[in-house]
Amino acid sequence: MQPQLKICEVGPRDGLQSIKSFLSTDQKMEWICGLYQVGFGEIEVGSFVSPKLLPQMADTGEVTRRSKELCGGLTVVALVPNRIGAELAFRSGTDKITVPVSVSEAHSVANVRKTKLQMLQEVSAIIQTRDQLAPHVSVEVGLSTAFGCSISGPIAEDDVLRLADALAKLGVDEVGLSDTTGMANPAQVRRLFSALISNLGTKAGAAHFHNTRGLGLANCLAAYDVGVRTFDSSQAGLGGCPYAPGASGNVVSEDLVFMFESMGITTGIDLHRLMALRSLLTKYLPNEELYGMTPQAYSARCDANAA
Amino acid sequence: MQPQLKICEVGPRDGLQSIKSFLSTDQKMEWICGLYQVGFGEIEVGSFVSPKLLPQMADTGEVTRRSKELCGGLTVVALVPNRIGAELAFRSGTDKITVPVSVSEAHSVANVRKTKLQMLQEVSAIIQTRDQLAPHVSVEVGLSTAFGCSISGPIAEDDVLRLADALAKLGVDEVGLSDTTGMANPAQVRRLFSALISNLGTKAGAAHFHNTRGLGLANCLAAYDVGVRTFDSSQAGLGGCPYAPGASGNVVSEDLVFMFESMGITTGIDLHRLMALRSLLTKYLPNEELYGMTPQAYSARCDANAA
Repeated sequence: MQPQLKICEVGPRDGLQSIKSFLSTDQKMEWICGLYQVGFGEIEVGSFVSPKLLPQMADTGEVTRRSKELCGGLTVVALVPNRIGAELAFRSGTDKITVPVSVSEAHSVANVRKTKLQMLQEVSAIIQTRDQLAPHVSVEVGLSTAFGCSISGPIAEDDVLRLADALAKLGVDEVGLSDTTGMANPAQVRRLFSALISNLGTKAGAAHFHNTRGLGLANCLAAYDVGVRTFDSSQAGLGGCPYAPGASGNVVSEDLVFMFESMGITTGIDLHRLMALRSLLTKYLPNEELYGMTPQAYSARCDANAA
Repeated sequence: MQPQLKICEVGPRDGLQSIKSFLSTDQKMEWICGLYQVGFGEIEVGSFVSPKLLPQMADTGEVTRRSKELCGGLTVVALVPNRIGAELAFRSGTDKITVPVSVSEAHSVANVRKTKLQMLQEVSAIIQTRDQLAPHVSVEVGLSTAFGCSISGPIAEDDVLRLADALAKLGVDEVGLSDTTGMANPAQVRRLFSALISNLGTKAGAAHFHNTRGLGLANCLAAYDVGVRTFDSSQAGLGGCPYAPGASGNVVSEDLVFMFESMGITTGIDLHRLMALRSLLTKYLPNEELYGMTPQAYSARCDANAA
């Protein structure tokens, strides 16, 4: 059956860049190919940033190339913070890039050392480069801190919507909203995504929530209710947030798939095989906490049946 | 400000009866008084069941009496499985009793060793006893396995609604729906609670969800959306499910309060003081896992501020 929504697995990027453990290129490829095989149609495989800043992402070019080779039909996504990164991504054969643009000026400077205006100029340069080098590649912007900022506090909803409009006008294909530090609540999610969809139509993009305060799934439900059909999540909830040490990361893919499938909404993802794939993370990331209630309940049931 | 909904804290009953650790009567009272002071208007303080079955609940009479003495204005709730328990509850001064009635025949027999028909007769006897001994006491029924049963599988929604109607006709004051083993999904929650409210009006009762598959908050949101205004939860998510060993228990009170308050819906509960109260559980229940993402994020932020 045709999936009724799209879940983009961001673990290999958002997950791995946030944890201390290190995966080799081969290990990453094993995970990415596994995710592809369980049914993810879109995977964020890495980030074209300075290897000095994020050594775990140094092999993103190689990972992108091999993902394209090994996973036919997969939409391979890479994060790029600037034009130089975008060019590397285009040359590696990526299908889609995602550019983080902060709504909070303070977070923008802290995260990418650029003001919002400078980031708009950067996105403009990225669009030009895309048009020249790789016109088939889709450009997404994820608006960081769209629901609140741990540096500057609450974010005016008008600021989010104005920035989204400006980006759409620059030629960005999709503008999504990211809850960078897990501050979003369902009422806010409904207001902002409703307005975004009403303003941008098909250019309204993904919901990217963190589970820092446990509201990840509730926020996804709220976004779904108002028409969002693309969601970011990471297997085992891998990922974190530099401004909330110790707090959990992304929405857990397993729980998200369970929620939608149990509601009768098809995701295209085989939940049982996805849960089986966790054993790979247990093996390669023995020191990381793996989140997810559905897998816990599932393994508890299996244990009980065996007993 | 007047709370816009009611959260009933069920930790002292549903939490404590499901874990191995033991709290003394004094320790329970310290916790219950703490919960009352942070703002809970209703607390399920214990269960009038055989002390042989649940030794941790043997002091429920004493706990009920002391809760009434120490917590002025609190609605003191006790669970009772039968008429004998109800009589004990009435004599202890409880304000409200809650009776679990399973929609699943198999679960009914496993849980209370009675068929559904026998349970309806029991409820009828409880109502009669209430009318004679304690006409001011409110009788609630929580329909167990309303969203699925780990023994007999899916539950027909018509069965749930028919049973709810029958109970309302017997004179029960409120009929709530319990997701005993954490199988509910938001679509089902909306369908069932909408129908329940439409059929029973003000006799439609609380939403009692478990977080076994991580959907606790999403299900609460879904229930709120269709008009539910009473929710059960337990501090630190204490509680479990005998049919899903290792799986988490109730919806976490801290996360639930955070969700509603952040949506601008007042609960009457002071979240910061509620989180401070966790230290009591850390002290008295050192071997139990304390759930909750909001408290984790909160303590991580405090650590970061201190560093």
